[in-house]
Amino acid sequence: MAQINDNYLKLQASYLFIEIGNRVASYTKANPGKNIIKMGIGDVTEPLPVACREAFHMAIDEMGTKDGFHGYGPEQGYPFLRETIASNEFHSRNCDISADEIFVSDGSKCDSGNIQEIFSLQSRIAIPDPVYPVYVDTNVMAGRTGDNIEGRYEGLVYLESTPENGYIPSPPEEKVDLIYLCFPNNPTGSCATRDQLKQWVDYARKNKAIILYDAAYVSFIRDPEIPHSIFEIDGARECALEFRSFSKNAGFTGTRCAYTVVPKDLLGYDSSGTPINIHQLWNRRQGTKFNGTSYPVQRAAAAIYSPEGKQEVIALTNFYMDNAALILDAMKDLGFSCVGGTNAPYVWIQTEGSSWDLFDRLLNEAGVVCTPGAGFGTCGEGHIRLSAFNSRENVEEAVKRLREVFSA
Amino acid sequence: MAQINDNYLKLQASYLFIEIGNRVASYTKANPGKNIIKMGIGDVTEPLPVACREAFHMAIDEMGTKDGFHGYGPEQGYPFLRETIASNEFHSRNCDISADEIFVSDGSKCDSGNIQEIFSLQSRIAIPDPVYPVYVDTNVMAGRTGDNIEGRYEGLVYLESTPENGYIPSPPEEKVDLIYLCFPNNPTGSCATRDQLKQWVDYARKNKAIILYDAAYVSFIRDPEIPHSIFEIDGARECALEFRSFSKNAGFTGTRCAYTVVPKDLLGYDSSGTPINIHQLWNRRQGTKFNGTSYPVQRAAAAIYSPEGKQEVIALTNFYMDNAALILDAMKDLGFSCVGGTNAPYVWIQTEGSSWDLFDRLLNEAGVVCTPGAGFGTCGEGHIRLSAFNSRENVEEAVKRLREVFSA
Repeated sequence: MAQINDNYLKLQASYLFIEIGNRVASYTKANPGKNIIKMGIGDVTEPLPVACREAFHMAIDEMGTKDGFHGYGPEQGYPFLRETIASNEFHSRNCDISADEIFVSDGSKCDSGNIQEIFSLQSRIAIPDPVYPVYVDTNVMAGRTGDNIEGRYEGLVYLESTPENGYIPSPPEEKVDLIYLCFPNNPTGSCATRDQLKQWVDYARKNKAIILYDAAYVSFIRDPEIPHSIFEIDGARECALEFRSFSKNAGFTGTRCAYTVVPKDLLGYDSSGTPINIHQLWNRRQGTKFNGTSYPVQRAAAAIYSPEGKQEVIALTNFYMDNAALILDAMKDLGFSCVGGTNAPYVWIQTEGSSWDLFDRLLNEAGVVCTPGAGFGTCGEGHIRLSAFNSRENVEEAVKRLREVFSA
Repeated sequence: MAQINDNYLKLQASYLFIEIGNRVASYTKANPGKNIIKMGIGDVTEPLPVACREAFHMAIDEMGTKDGFHGYGPEQGYPFLRETIASNEFHSRNCDISADEIFVSDGSKCDSGNIQEIFSLQSRIAIPDPVYPVYVDTNVMAGRTGDNIEGRYEGLVYLESTPENGYIPSPPEEKVDLIYLCFPNNPTGSCATRDQLKQWVDYARKNKAIILYDAAYVSFIRDPEIPHSIFEIDGARECALEFRSFSKNAGFTGTRCAYTVVPKDLLGYDSSGTPINIHQLWNRRQGTKFNGTSYPVQRAAAAIYSPEGKQEVIALTNFYMDNAALILDAMKDLGFSCVGGTNAPYVWIQTEGSSWDLFDRLLNEAGVVCTPGAGFGTCGEGHIRLSAFNSRENVEEAVKRLREVFSA
């Protein structure tokens, strides 16, 4: 008899987005003429850069010739892409990362979801709260948690991000084995300083823990003091790996390309305590379950680092950050306490009452849809998230409406 | 302390391909002028179809416009692709499969590797021998086996494909929960008849087992009596899912697109015996760990079903099957006992001695590289595989050399 993985039954249905949908539908029914602006979305809206499209087209033409045809590529990605990433993202910031420590993939969701497979099911996991749900759900599916009790899974160590700690959790008192961190943060937009990251690196080295560092939003950092990579911190090569993505900087959410950096110095331990190279384990995982990212997509991604591509990426991220500034300014003017929006495309806004109360007020009075913070975890309650990924026209209209409603 | 998944330590290193590499290198060193023809490879060589490239180009141009830009798509694939697959691959053969039962992905290696995640770790697994190594290795990694003892993992039920059963295993006497089957088979090229598949469907229904049916090579079937899908067999909707790929029919090994068919009638059972819908479980798995296949790639894949695309796919698969016929004819003429090569792009050749002996003879006397069958499992010993995926020029030269060597 085919038995299922019972851990899937512990997963919570995504009531958040169903509930958002229901409330928006009710509002639309009651206000048929009203134009609703969706500011809850984390997806980019602007066209793919010209440099990427040109490289993409060229690669497809190559695939039409006998000599230029590319069949199975290296599971880890083509050297041309791994090398340009190492040089442009890491060497340029004095991070000691080599091309063969970069594993190209079709998305950070896959990588951050799959990474847990190479670790023991007994691993003790530390997870930020609020959090990108993939870190939690993939560990639930694997069986590293108990049941969900009032919004939290038994067995996980939650790292609380609150107004009191500036939304940057410190290392816990207790020992954990794997630590998920994300900076600039989704959903709060907060960024860890060098000193704060150093505390995490020190903790991880002391406890032989591994930091799974998600840097998907790094291209939105504008403050030169904020570290762009965990590998800017001394000792991180021994205790961290890092997820990066082209989704948000170059608009690849629908094109699909990302990468994970796994330093060769990173060690885990087998059950007898023998050190095991994590780079080799991940290489084996990818070699067995993945067949490489589409060749034309890898060519399009490499063009991000051409002189033209770099300029376009700066223009794109500046565009979204100008949106973020409009949102942040308006919400601050209106008296809300906010973080994010200066080095991240999300503004995280504190509410007086529940996140659903503010959601309702924005929807009913301004026709603006946000994401209620409660959907990202217990500590998300009392907050909403507004996203800067939208057209300028929509952002300006949304901000105008919010100013009218809350100034009234 | 970060502990690893100890099951990875049970995996056998891929000595086969290292050993092939070593022997080829030695030969090349000793025979510097000799042109070696690699006939062991399972990768396509011919250009991507014109129809696919045109659709690919158009989709990239769309991505350059504000209105045509595509961000995150449905994790399950776009309806335009799911619908054309359902219609062209299944409705055309009277298989009752709907578009929303088709999950588009970036490869069958991923799908056939990931599918085991949704099943219990206690599942009893039946695996063909010889076999595509991904089925075995992904179950080893998950912990469903013991150690490897003389080439076989403890805890797996091996389905032997031998000259005696025409390389088509029958259902085992004992009960198993999950059954991997692949027809047309890699590596043997054998194809199951309707009656043989019916035996498997009957077995699975009787035992509430699930068949994981890999049909990646279906487009090479030329005999109209051979079923193209497990869903041509009555009752299969209740006991099977099916992997399909565009890698081999349309040359997508480097472009990456595939799909898995999961009927809504398919049930597994939780540990209390409650029936659970497998379609919903796979949907949850994909929604959590996958972000959809690249939009331009999905457009390129849909063009396979345009009138021009269909003609090009027929021409491509005919080209490889003509290669297969050249190989099969030569090896039969030379007195070898062979299967495959008529409805599959692989020819599976029986040897007198060990597979490595014949490998050496082909390499040293003809400069032709094959794959020794022992690399695919215990029952692969005494066989070699020759692949039809090559240029005509290479196949003709290889066949000419083999005829010279073995006729001498």
